[in-house]
Amino acid sequence: MAEFGIDPFADLYAERARGMSASAVRALFAVASRPEVISLAGGSPFVHALPQDRVLEAARRAIVDRGDVALQYGGGQGHLGLREQLVKVMDAEGVAADPDHLVITEGAQEGLDILGKIFIDPGDTIAIEAPAYVGGISAFSTYQPRFLPIPLDDDGMIVEALEEALIRGERPKFVYTVPNFHNPAGVTLSYERRVRLVALCREAGIPIVEDNPYGMLRYEGDAVPTLRSMDPDNVIYLGTVSKILAPGVRIGWILGGPGLIQRAVLAKEAASLCSSHLTQLITEEYFAQGDDWREGVAGFVEVYRSRRDAMLRALESHFPAESSWTHPAGGFFVWATVPSHIDTSDLLAAAVERRVAYVPGAAFYADGSGRDKMRLAFCLAPERDIEEGIRRLADLLREETELYRSLGGPGAGD
Amino acid sequence: MAEFGIDPFADLYAERARGMSASAVRALFAVASRPEVISLAGGSPFVHALPQDRVLEAARRAIVDRGDVALQYGGGQGHLGLREQLVKVMDAEGVAADPDHLVITEGAQEGLDILGKIFIDPGDTIAIEAPAYVGGISAFSTYQPRFLPIPLDDDGMIVEALEEALIRGERPKFVYTVPNFHNPAGVTLSYERRVRLVALCREAGIPIVEDNPYGMLRYEGDAVPTLRSMDPDNVIYLGTVSKILAPGVRIGWILGGPGLIQRAVLAKEAASLCSSHLTQLITEEYFAQGDDWREGVAGFVEVYRSRRDAMLRALESHFPAESSWTHPAGGFFVWATVPSHIDTSDLLAAAVERRVAYVPGAAFYADGSGRDKMRLAFCLAPERDIEEGIRRLADLLREETELYRSLGGPGAGD
Repeated sequence: MAEFGIDPFADLYAERARGMSASAVRALFAVASRPEVISLAGGSPFVHALPQDRVLEAARRAIVDRGDVALQYGGGQGHLGLREQLVKVMDAEGVAADPDHLVITEGAQEGLDILGKIFIDPGDTIAIEAPAYVGGISAFSTYQPRFLPIPLDDDGMIVEALEEALIRGERPKFVYTVPNFHNPAGVTLSYERRVRLVALCREAGIPIVEDNPYGMLRYEGDAVPTLRSMDPDNVIYLGTVSKILAPGVRIGWILGGPGLIQRAVLAKEAASLCSSHLTQLITEEYFAQGDDWREGVAGFVEVYRSRRDAMLRALESHFPAESSWTHPAGGFFVWATVPSHIDTSDLLAAAVERRVAYVPGAAFYADGSGRDKMRLAFCLAPERDIEEGIRRLADLLREETELYRSLGGPGAGD
Repeated sequence: MAEFGIDPFADLYAERARGMSASAVRALFAVASRPEVISLAGGSPFVHALPQDRVLEAARRAIVDRGDVALQYGGGQGHLGLREQLVKVMDAEGVAADPDHLVITEGAQEGLDILGKIFIDPGDTIAIEAPAYVGGISAFSTYQPRFLPIPLDDDGMIVEALEEALIRGERPKFVYTVPNFHNPAGVTLSYERRVRLVALCREAGIPIVEDNPYGMLRYEGDAVPTLRSMDPDNVIYLGTVSKILAPGVRIGWILGGPGLIQRAVLAKEAASLCSSHLTQLITEEYFAQGDDWREGVAGFVEVYRSRRDAMLRALESHFPAESSWTHPAGGFFVWATVPSHIDTSDLLAAAVERRVAYVPGAAFYADGSGRDKMRLAFCLAPERDIEEGIRRLADLLREETELYRSLGGPGAGD
């Protein structure tokens, strides 16, 4: 790893740390932060849409009215008042929960890390979607599993493929899925597949980890029941306020059974004692202001729907005929497939040179496949920038294809 | 583990999670929170002494003036503006640092977890003090090391004992120490021993992990140079604002070399993407208000010095002659040794019944020894309560000793 330079501790690192490499997400935070680049890369919510006065009022209440608690240490499970508010939030998605069965985490990401820590011995198999959330791959990778990738289509995870793998003798420790408005694929697991997945996993004694950051950001159609609501005993549910309030508070949670939650609390305490009491109380106060938080979510939905529509229109207008893309009913992402002679990892530098960024598909596959895919986020850029960014990307794709044909590639002369 | 009840996932947990057990710290958070109990247990700072208006002003600036940043995701290394402020804080302790060589963590506890993750393969040896910070033991334990305990005396870690262990052929991955106002022992590593420790570890190629949460809380005497300032290349430094601002913001940091920090950033991203941008910016704004933060520290020092004095006076007045205790020059804790026929773990229930709590010594030893020790915190309780709490404990110790003698124990008839 040349970028690490001379390191006096180079021979001392644990095996799990030797495999650590700079993630695509990390590299892209740097790229996306340059102001001249139109970023369709990071999945950063449009926090500017938040009612700032409500956030400030929540902070004022936490610091002035409850400062002795907000500024102090707290228990590893998280503040009860916040857990009660989050039960209310989950209720809005049809998930019934007991506040005792939640543990507060530093965003849902820490939930993934804790589940990895609790379940994964080196060499254990973990079933993930292909593509999968890149942060899930990196969180679990710390614990040195073997990944069993299950492909997706427009109806989400192809449950038949998981079933076939189990028949072949695969025994994953758990199945990890983002069923709603998938990151990166934008697709949603159909009701029929949910029924089948839940039954299959229950029968096989394999827990499901349901990661649901985008569930409330639906722009069309009706909600599909959560996996958790279909089988509370066998589904571990991960939630976050990152997309319905703000990622800056780093508040997520794990909902599980008592045995799992007690272990998760111990893992949380060993890792960081407790989540910030200050952001816990600010979040609690924000959600405690009646139904105002729902207006905040409605505001987000309105912005994101328009941006999604702008992106789909721009793709339709500009992208080359040989490409295809998903039509997300919610969430943040469109997943595009480009002509197969193009490697989106290689193309990124040229794209950034033309001042547009995306995340290359390979970041979302544990085996580095998906090189003809790209994730296009419509959450942060304004509509005009989305249109312009897609146009720049489309020009680049077209030029690459022309160059390839002129060099005598298989499509030449078609 | 009976307390976990029937758990559908009981056979699925990783080996590291099977060893997880409820920590003494955790159990004591519950005990200490009952209002009728005088808690000399938890090391909770007296955040009530903080200038509330300055904290609120810092929050207002973060949310109103910088909301689009404060509420958003950030990079895994942490916000540069905060890292620059923390460099200033370290400078006040004689530690020179480059903001690029810091990674922001969720309190220093997450720093311990990250170092465990980066360095410890199962079975590796880690040298720790005996007694050691309980959170260090639990963070490292996740990664399944073998602990090499090095005893302490009034001058801190007995470096000769570490030297003898190395001569015997021990090769720890690192040496973990809290050199200033040790938790739980209250002692400070002498200058002579610092020189010897730094030279010994450098020669042996063993990094030192210096955990310094209490360094600025000195109530008498002169500061001793940090280990980091004596050998920046071989000492990894952990800092936190928990004791100079508030634990509720959960802001700590690791200071290391470039190679270590890049790995730490990757580990941080895998575990939680980034620390809360909101609390990072509030902390930055707090420390950016000129030298006001030093007044805050001076306010803490004044309160804690009086409380320490109150505890030492009360111990002198009330504790039985057969007991002894340390005289901390700073920090939060007195470490008491009681007559050896008393087991402080067993005694705790009776103490709580008399409405006083402490942390039993065994919590601070990886091998469960130290059963005639107790940690007494003077940070949170007011002076009157400290005096009363020590009196209640002294009465209990005396009654236990009388009972023991009346039953014919070795001390009977002395």
